[in-house]
Amino acid sequence: MTLPESLDFSHLYSNETKARKPSPLKTCIHLFQDPNIIFLGGGLPLSDYFPWDNLTAQSPLPPFQKGIGAVPSGSKEDTLNIHVKKNEKNGNDIPLARALQYGFTPGQPEMLSFLREHTQKIHDMKYADWDVIASTGNTNAWESTLRIFCNRGDVILAEEYSFSSSLAAAEAQGVITVPVPVDSFGIVPEKLEELLDSWTEGAPKPKLLYTIPTGQNPTGTSLSSERKEAIYRIAQKHNFLIVEDEPYYFLQVGDYVPDLKKREEINSAPRPTHQEFLDSLVKTFLSCDTDGRVVRLDSFSKVLAPGTRMGWITASKKLLRPYVSLHEMTIQAPAGFTQVLVSGTLNRWGQEGYLDWLIGLRHEYVAKRDHTIDSLSKYLPQSDAFKVLPPVAGMFFTIDIDASAHPDFKTKFDSDPAKVEAAIYERVIKSGVLVVPGSWFKTVGDTVPPQPKTSDNAKKNEIFFRGTYAAVAPEKLEAGLKRLGDALKEEFGFAA
Amino acid sequence: MTLPESLDFSHLYSNETKARKPSPLKTCIHLFQDPNIIFLGGGLPLSDYFPWDNLTAQSPLPPFQKGIGAVPSGSKEDTLNIHVKKNEKNGNDIPLARALQYGFTPGQPEMLSFLREHTQKIHDMKYADWDVIASTGNTNAWESTLRIFCNRGDVILAEEYSFSSSLAAAEAQGVITVPVPVDSFGIVPEKLEELLDSWTEGAPKPKLLYTIPTGQNPTGTSLSSERKEAIYRIAQKHNFLIVEDEPYYFLQVGDYVPDLKKREEINSAPRPTHQEFLDSLVKTFLSCDTDGRVVRLDSFSKVLAPGTRMGWITASKKLLRPYVSLHEMTIQAPAGFTQVLVSGTLNRWGQEGYLDWLIGLRHEYVAKRDHTIDSLSKYLPQSDAFKVLPPVAGMFFTIDIDASAHPDFKTKFDSDPAKVEAAIYERVIKSGVLVVPGSWFKTVGDTVPPQPKTSDNAKKNEIFFRGTYAAVAPEKLEAGLKRLGDALKEEFGFAA
Repeated sequence: MTLPESLDFSHLYSNETKARKPSPLKTCIHLFQDPNIIFLGGGLPLSDYFPWDNLTAQSPLPPFQKGIGAVPSGSKEDTLNIHVKKNEKNGNDIPLARALQYGFTPGQPEMLSFLREHTQKIHDMKYADWDVIASTGNTNAWESTLRIFCNRGDVILAEEYSFSSSLAAAEAQGVITVPVPVDSFGIVPEKLEELLDSWTEGAPKPKLLYTIPTGQNPTGTSLSSERKEAIYRIAQKHNFLIVEDEPYYFLQVGDYVPDLKKREEINSAPRPTHQEFLDSLVKTFLSCDTDGRVVRLDSFSKVLAPGTRMGWITASKKLLRPYVSLHEMTIQAPAGFTQVLVSGTLNRWGQEGYLDWLIGLRHEYVAKRDHTIDSLSKYLPQSDAFKVLPPVAGMFFTIDIDASAHPDFKTKFDSDPAKVEAAIYERVIKSGVLVVPGSWFKTVGDTVPPQPKTSDNAKKNEIFFRGTYAAVAPEKLEAGLKRLGDALKEEFGFAA
Repeated sequence: MTLPESLDFSHLYSNETKARKPSPLKTCIHLFQDPNIIFLGGGLPLSDYFPWDNLTAQSPLPPFQKGIGAVPSGSKEDTLNIHVKKNEKNGNDIPLARALQYGFTPGQPEMLSFLREHTQKIHDMKYADWDVIASTGNTNAWESTLRIFCNRGDVILAEEYSFSSSLAAAEAQGVITVPVPVDSFGIVPEKLEELLDSWTEGAPKPKLLYTIPTGQNPTGTSLSSERKEAIYRIAQKHNFLIVEDEPYYFLQVGDYVPDLKKREEINSAPRPTHQEFLDSLVKTFLSCDTDGRVVRLDSFSKVLAPGTRMGWITASKKLLRPYVSLHEMTIQAPAGFTQVLVSGTLNRWGQEGYLDWLIGLRHEYVAKRDHTIDSLSKYLPQSDAFKVLPPVAGMFFTIDIDASAHPDFKTKFDSDPAKVEAAIYERVIKSGVLVVPGSWFKTVGDTVPPQPKTSDNAKKNEIFFRGTYAAVAPEKLEAGLKRLGDALKEEFGFAA
């Protein structure tokens, strides 16, 4: 199905997007490839003067039998040589001469065709005229999304707690973020609907919902397929876009199994088939999208490496147009070296090899998550005041703390949970471990639109800290969690 | 000399910059490197899971005896192997594990220290508290500059004709660009001063001058040291910033020597010493800057390759701060692969080797410029209606045309030079060559500030086309210029 012409979201564009004229130079750049034209049109340096003649990298080889962290030995059994030449077109490689030249703002074709095929494997696309373009990662893609859709004073929705850089980007641009209530499983559709149904008349309605559906940052929650469908229907009813920021999508680690024997059984089962892996992935907003109102931001940062500075945006061809126009005036395209190496690696691994990589990556994160939750059960104060919900995806865990359980809550801290939070933060750093206060991620909406629903009264003394099991090796992780537990015990007056 | 506190340009910041809060997460990211802290603070993936173990590239070897375009043979005599490992710190290399991780928004230290040393060689820095930060190239750096300083409705200055993407970026942001009159040698300081002295009272004054001083795009003109000093004094008087966009700075090819014998003599002289080369470079705005009011944008696009997507910004430490804050929310940093390879190459070449490269590059462009002007003298219609001023820098030449010399000027074209321009453009493309109409680059200022000074009456029928000698090899270049000459002869009714 092709999207009907009548479904058009251009009324949601910012003044900037509406005013952005295509550069006249772009109208003739295609003539650079025309064999009948001698191109004296644009300042493209001769590739003869690019100083790099060829590029080689080594990666492990699918199916990554020794684990994705195993160092390739250099032998044929476990090592892939990615060797790309300047002027030779070898298989699906992007020749260096092209990758290092101007052009191809949407991304190099060899990279994009891999990503399109990947998209079809992962998502159940409901319409035909979608596409992908390269980005320089989700941070930039989100900031650009704000530029493309929002004017100063416009309103967007975001989870009650969200990635602080994303919120700060909106704030700097003068965009008002209205918080959407969440529970332990992410956005609560009924509360979202209530919020929108009772929207102050005449107040500007939200243009889009910004959400991190899987392994949400900072809460670690993941939205179920059912909630996504419900939220999508609300987006249709109130006609806003959904921007799903999904850096952690492939870190879906499943339910935590506390019973070690059972866990052992699961872990010793054969590796899942590719189909089993694909079936295990939660449904995406993109897969719900029948209107072309979802913009999905994917990134290689968490699955390959942050320093690739590359990701991709998936949406309707129509909605991608303003992104390309903006990219022409800003990033132009991800770095040529990145495109050569990432595309060179992925096209050699193949779609199936990439799934092997993702399965291997998940395997690592399952172990990290399990080790974290095991350790927290061991080291946290044994009290109802400290709660940990094992995450099913992502890099983050949270420790929910009832601040009123602090013995000095009413005295030293004037019954103010924020003061308890600050005291804990100070103490954990002194104890040699870093976790981050939840208040750093609070979505503070303006009061022009309806007042954000504040959390229920029962929760009013609840604070939380965000930790991650991503950044350190297992032994260090456990040592860190012990320090954390000890610090909390000390602060709250439990016996160590 | 350190800049005095009293010299402060923060009143020129945009509302966005003033509102931009540092991400609270950035206040603790330094603890990632603290050996006493177990870092469970941020979503940094383990570098063990980055799939690239090492990276190798080959480049030619200084002093590039066979020319910068010579393909390295692989032998020790002419080939440099840049081999960078994931976890080993080898000399000045950036280990892959660090380059591919988050962090280092201003750029990797090994890259920055090379650029700082380079800056000291090239510029005569007048104050001590300057610095450099990495950018993803001048297109993005300029667009960010607009975000940092300008609100909608703010005013900037730019050359009467300027790079269309730069102008379009300002226009989309609602920033008004007032054109500054130019002649064959760039901005005319007296006219700039007149423009500012007679500024409409109460109208918003320009926050900055955007200029491409060397090998200007599209006019090919270059500003002399004297004009730069005069313009700098005007900037002080009227208190605006100067943003010098200098992608072509190292393509300074000197005066055109029409006499072939004399040229032969010059060309057969020994290669200039590094000191002679440095002395030959025109003084920069940065070298005039005693106040910290110059922001310089440099790029590797024209000297190494556009696809590096890397450049750097040089300014006072104070003025660089809002750039870093914006980069944290947008690009974060140039791609890790780029930093590893560019830094790995430059640090192996060394400062002196890089000068050899730049001298070699200039050598190529001298030949291209000479060949172009020789060919134009040969193929253009022999008439005063067609003028070519040989450029002394950059990639571009212009052909100035008196449109009224067209036999159908008053009849078919209604005495409208724009119509002649359109007819020429159509004909040259049909003839199999692409050059770009000058009108595509016109800086169209709004009329809210004073009316832009229109060109003198004598010039009112003058149109021009921009061509480049960068993009094609010598034989093709000459063939293209012949096609161009023939097309113009045909259009203007000269015998072929």
